Amino acid sequence: MIKKYVFGQPVCTDAVVMNIPESGDAFSVMELTESDGVKLCCRMGERDVVYGLGEQVRGMNKRGFSYVSYATDDSIHTENKHSLYGAHNFLALARKSRETDSGEGGSFGIFVDDPGRVVFDVGETKHDQLVIQAGGDCVIYVIEGEDLKDIVRQFRRLIGRSYLPPKWAFGYQQSRWGYVCQEDVREVVRGHHGQGIPLEAVYLDIDYMENYKDFTVDGEKFPAFGDFVDEMKGQGVHLVPIIDAGVKIEKGYPVYEEGVQKGYFCKDEEEGDFVAAVWPGRVHFPDMLNPEARAWFGENYKFLTDQGIDGFWNDMNEPAIFYSEKNLEKVMDEVISLKDENLDIDSFFHMVEIVTGLSNNRKDYKSFYHNMNGEKVCHDKVHNLYGFNMTRAAAEAFEKLMPEKRTLLFSRSSYIGMHRYGGIWTGDNESWWSHILLSMQQMPALNMCGILYTGSDIGGFGSDTTEDLLMRWLEFAMFTPLMRNHAAMGTRRQEIYQFERIEDFRNLIRLRYGLLPYIYSEYMKAALSGGMYFRPIAFDYPEDAHADQVEDQLMIGESIMIAPVYVQNAKGRYVYLPEEMLMVRMRSLEDYASEAMDKGHHYVETDLNELVIFVKKNRVLPIAAPDRDVKTTADIEDAPIIWFGFIETAAEYVFYDDDGISRNPVPEEKWKTVTVRKEDLAC
Amino acid sequence: MIKKYVFGQPVCTDAVVMNIPESGDAFSVMELTESDGVKLCCRMGERDVVYGLGEQVRGMNKRGFSYVSYATDDSIHTENKHSLYGAHNFLALARKSRETDSGEGGSFGIFVDDPGRVVFDVGETKHDQLVIQAGGDCVIYVIEGEDLKDIVRQFRRLIGRSYLPPKWAFGYQQSRWGYVCQEDVREVVRGHHGQGIPLEAVYLDIDYMENYKDFTVDGEKFPAFGDFVDEMKGQGVHLVPIIDAGVKIEKGYPVYEEGVQKGYFCKDEEEGDFVAAVWPGRVHFPDMLNPEARAWFGENYKFLTDQGIDGFWNDMNEPAIFYSEKNLEKVMDEVISLKDENLDIDSFFHMVEIVTGLSNNRKDYKSFYHNMNGEKVCHDKVHNLYGFNMTRAAAEAFEKLMPEKRTLLFSRSSYIGMHRYGGIWTGDNESWWSHILLSMQQMPALNMCGILYTGSDIGGFGSDTTEDLLMRWLEFAMFTPLMRNHAAMGTRRQEIYQFERIEDFRNLIRLRYGLLPYIYSEYMKAALSGGMYFRPIAFDYPEDAHADQVEDQLMIGESIMIAPVYVQNAKGRYVYLPEEMLMVRMRSLEDYASEAMDKGHHYVETDLNELVIFVKKNRVLPIAAPDRDVKTTADIEDAPIIWFGFIETAAEYVFYDDDGISRNPVPEEKWKTVTVRKEDLAC
Repeated sequence: MIKKYVFGQPVCTDAVVMNIPESGDAFSVMELTESDGVKLCCRMGERDVVYGLGEQVRGMNKRGFSYVSYATDDSIHTENKHSLYGAHNFLALARKSRETDSGEGGSFGIFVDDPGRVVFDVGETKHDQLVIQAGGDCVIYVIEGEDLKDIVRQFRRLIGRSYLPPKWAFGYQQSRWGYVCQEDVREVVRGHHGQGIPLEAVYLDIDYMENYKDFTVDGEKFPAFGDFVDEMKGQGVHLVPIIDAGVKIEKGYPVYEEGVQKGYFCKDEEEGDFVAAVWPGRVHFPDMLNPEARAWFGENYKFLTDQGIDGFWNDMNEPAIFYSEKNLEKVMDEVISLKDENLDIDSFFHMVEIVTGLSNNRKDYKSFYHNMNGEKVCHDKVHNLYGFNMTRAAAEAFEKLMPEKRTLLFSRSSYIGMHRYGGIWTGDNESWWSHILLSMQQMPALNMCGILYTGSDIGGFGSDTTEDLLMRWLEFAMFTPLMRNHAAMGTRRQEIYQFERIEDFRNLIRLRYGLLPYIYSEYMKAALSGGMYFRPIAFDYPEDAHADQVEDQLMIGESIMIAPVYVQNAKGRYVYLPEEMLMVRMRSLEDYASEAMDKGHHYVETDLNELVIFVKKNRVLPIAAPDRDVKTTADIEDAPIIWFGFIETAAEYVFYDDDGISRNPVPEEKWKTVTVRKEDLAC
Repeated sequence: MIKKYVFGQPVCTDAVVMNIPESGDAFSVMELTESDGVKLCCRMGERDVVYGLGEQVRGMNKRGFSYVSYATDDSIHTENKHSLYGAHNFLALARKSRETDSGEGGSFGIFVDDPGRVVFDVGETKHDQLVIQAGGDCVIYVIEGEDLKDIVRQFRRLIGRSYLPPKWAFGYQQSRWGYVCQEDVREVVRGHHGQGIPLEAVYLDIDYMENYKDFTVDGEKFPAFGDFVDEMKGQGVHLVPIIDAGVKIEKGYPVYEEGVQKGYFCKDEEEGDFVAAVWPGRVHFPDMLNPEARAWFGENYKFLTDQGIDGFWNDMNEPAIFYSEKNLEKVMDEVISLKDENLDIDSFFHMVEIVTGLSNNRKDYKSFYHNMNGEKVCHDKVHNLYGFNMTRAAAEAFEKLMPEKRTLLFSRSSYIGMHRYGGIWTGDNESWWSHILLSMQQMPALNMCGILYTGSDIGGFGSDTTEDLLMRWLEFAMFTPLMRNHAAMGTRRQEIYQFERIEDFRNLIRLRYGLLPYIYSEYMKAALSGGMYFRPIAFDYPEDAHADQVEDQLMIGESIMIAPVYVQNAKGRYVYLPEEMLMVRMRSLEDYASEAMDKGHHYVETDLNELVIFVKKNRVLPIAAPDRDVKTTADIEDAPIIWFGFIETAAEYVFYDDDGISRNPVPEEKWKTVTVRKEDLAC
């Protein structure tokens, strides 16, 4: 049951799709105070767990820290960061302490639909207090249900169906900030194909553009771009260009000229077009919250789709700001005034602070404005909607430009609601072992918020990767819908053919393609029915007393659990089985073995090149067993399906499949139920 | 057996104390190349483990990363940092793969006595290659032995006896960058005593000085400082002031004037006194490598010891540099030249980089010089000796100033050799759960290098702590010789009386005092016999096939193993027992229970307020059971000793104790061997 509460004069965020009436009941699951905005407070029992909040640091259980919804371009994802790129204001408090701590009521979910700054203090200040602080103008939805899965399902109905990517978007993809010309891209394709490694897409980071101008292609580095797109398609490789939020200020650049002329850019305090800077230096920000401007921005993607592009990543849309023109002037003057001074602890750190504080400064976000249906709205109040609406701009344009086809689309910044238009990647992570775990912990939290098409930069974006890190990361990313290896300029090259254990890497990527029938089926079912593709163990085993404690295993789809290794030099790990399961150990699509394991704690040895999955009791999973070398998802379309499973006599599996490209999915009543008997199992 | 190899014209570092002859044998354990400096290379088998390197990031097994010995003031200790504050060039390669990878020979230790930049690529570039790159002038010691313990023991004989702190230095200590006046300190003492929490020392960070000038006390904030020291001593509390490396340039300030006049400061390229800046702005660096200057700097501590101070921490002695005068001018000019430009990706990041790059810039380290016995030596070549010799300056002075007494002394920067003069703390960590684990992993690596008196800032220095983080951290720090809660200005107050679970905290601190007879006994035995107080499990159980894999448990002294909880919200953890052990679970000195546990893997539930230790077979440990409230270590001097143990009939324990303050320890032949019978055990 969902109850809706409206406070003040909220803007319409379009986060939800169901128009439900305001509740007449008093706000009950948390204590409400309305003085300085809306404040909600409740006690948490010792064993209660809080799940959700999407893209944030720390564990699946969010207790013990405070999280601030304020989309931020911060590339150092350490434990003390309160904000990352997205704002996902939905959490579920799982009451596990009812026996001992009476009086708190049952579990509930809460969605704070406020696109400004919202703080979730989940027991940071006081271990047993959950405190939510929102602005004065917001809508709050409270959801009670049978269990966590039910609460999430209700919430997902409220916010609408998740984005459906094309099937090719589940293939293996390669990216690097540093492929600066056609030949670089060709080399990457050759590098993979030469080693028999499947490859579905190569990404174009900011260098493909002419001086970082959106909707341009540098004609010297990428001459005859349309032909090059075709050449790559001929090899089965999609090119996926980046689009940035800021539009370069440059006389004669049509996107800039048209935006100025039509008044489609965000305004500053003096009604001029707000000037910030990103890659190209000074830019204006298209007013993504103005429906007309949004439509206009979206139409510009046509420049690239006309040349055969069918996938995009939208970046820098928090929006990231290197500096605002006004603040830069101020800071410059202040720095100059310090010349020849004896800079001590105060003045020196002040100088460093104002220079580093030029970027992503909240004062700048408070100094520009949107035109929301004629109303002038300060950006700070609706900050978290920007990336959402940039991606919506693209998605709504694609519906017109390519009405039959799904496109690949994901974004760095997001807000709940954007999940209907595209996915996200988890931004600029690092080549850190701890970031494999962080990624594992973020996935179910994102799924709760409807964001299903997601993954982290495999191998790590910043810092130098190592062969073992990359391999262990791939073993987890084997299951993320977005499976993309991406790295920053200046770091060690991390395409898998750069390393020595090519055969192991090839086997792992081929395993991904083998697992695709299951991954795609489970993704689509989750998207179409409002389910979670990734779930904490405790969601599936709510009565298991230990399941809440498991922070490094995941349920994936209806049939399996994974327990990836994410510690350097580890040759195994502890795994908790909440019931008897079948462990399947795979070295390749041809080399695997299985073993039934009892409920309980186990230490499982796992060699660096082994993928281990755990199949639930009475469950099966379909695996493609292609009889030829696989280069892309197209090559598994007609591959024979074999079944892995853990069954006594037979089990049913709802096997979703489609052509992978049509916008309209197969309706639920036509989903295929397959009965698999024990004797049909390959493993 | 130790073999010594000399390359080029090495400076005398005083790292070692044994004068052994140069080996006539060819260099054998690694392949040697002498072209661009000294390069050593060897293959590592799949299961080989590398231990050592002291204060560095990542696991106990150092494989999979490269470590750069170049002392650096970097406060963000993430997985990608190649250098921290110290330089500890000793590692041991444990050959575990002999059966499968033949031809590599046995385990060995290697010490690269080169105080300049040294790189240890422990399988980062290539998973199976260990590559050490030193300068052309260095001494290398290769140690082969029976096992890891033996290799370490030989190395420790080579480098001399570790520092002996006074017993009070093992008590609970409180620090904060932010106690700016007497009343702040009194409040901290009252805060602890008011709650019955023992307290041994309060630290004075940089604010006690007059404008950050070494060997001054701000007379307004700390009037009649000597009286205040006495007042605190009356309450059992030692005051421990900080001393910084840089001496403020200020006319009339005697330390500055005298240093200039006597030529005791490091010189720049034009033979002037080198100008850098730290807290007070412009400073000179005393030439700690010039024996006369070192003696002079040391004598200055008298100003504080005369007022009753008997403990110090030496900081900023990498030496940290906020900026050099020359580079600041250059950067300022460059920033000014950018005014009114359109700063884009290149120019903007360049500007931020040169400003943030002002600090701890290697170019500055290459631009100043030492006078080493008349020879002019570029700082960069001997960079890692600076902190060592600052601390040696103090220690050598204390020998004269207080010839009978031990003093508390530890440093931020260090090099092997400094372990004879003082300890270290592990610098500016963060209130991160991962930093509990990092600290656990650093301890045995530091012990290998002789650094026994050490610990990390409990609760974390940077960022806001939480009650649960602080409590779990205390449960590990229970066993670190230096047990100090320290936090940065601007972070949440983290004295334990600021939180709600005061009783649990009090019990934990009291447990530390109860465990002190064991901790002190084991520390002193390790120091006096060249042993390790903290050991990886694999050091004690070399034949155990799983022990190498255990990165989060430690052997402490001869009787126990610990397995602290370091994951937020965890109510237990997996523990590996390499043999049958007795698990003792303690909630307080009065409330404990034990249980024998089998060899193998276990999941152990551990409430937030529980200290769990594992007692080895046939071992015992002495515990103080004071019959009155404990305020300081003095209160346990005459407390009855009770014994915990895991014995069948009886066991012997070598119980070291002394008056805790005399410089001369009890000679080994007089150490007391106690026989404890099963019926004598309290638990």
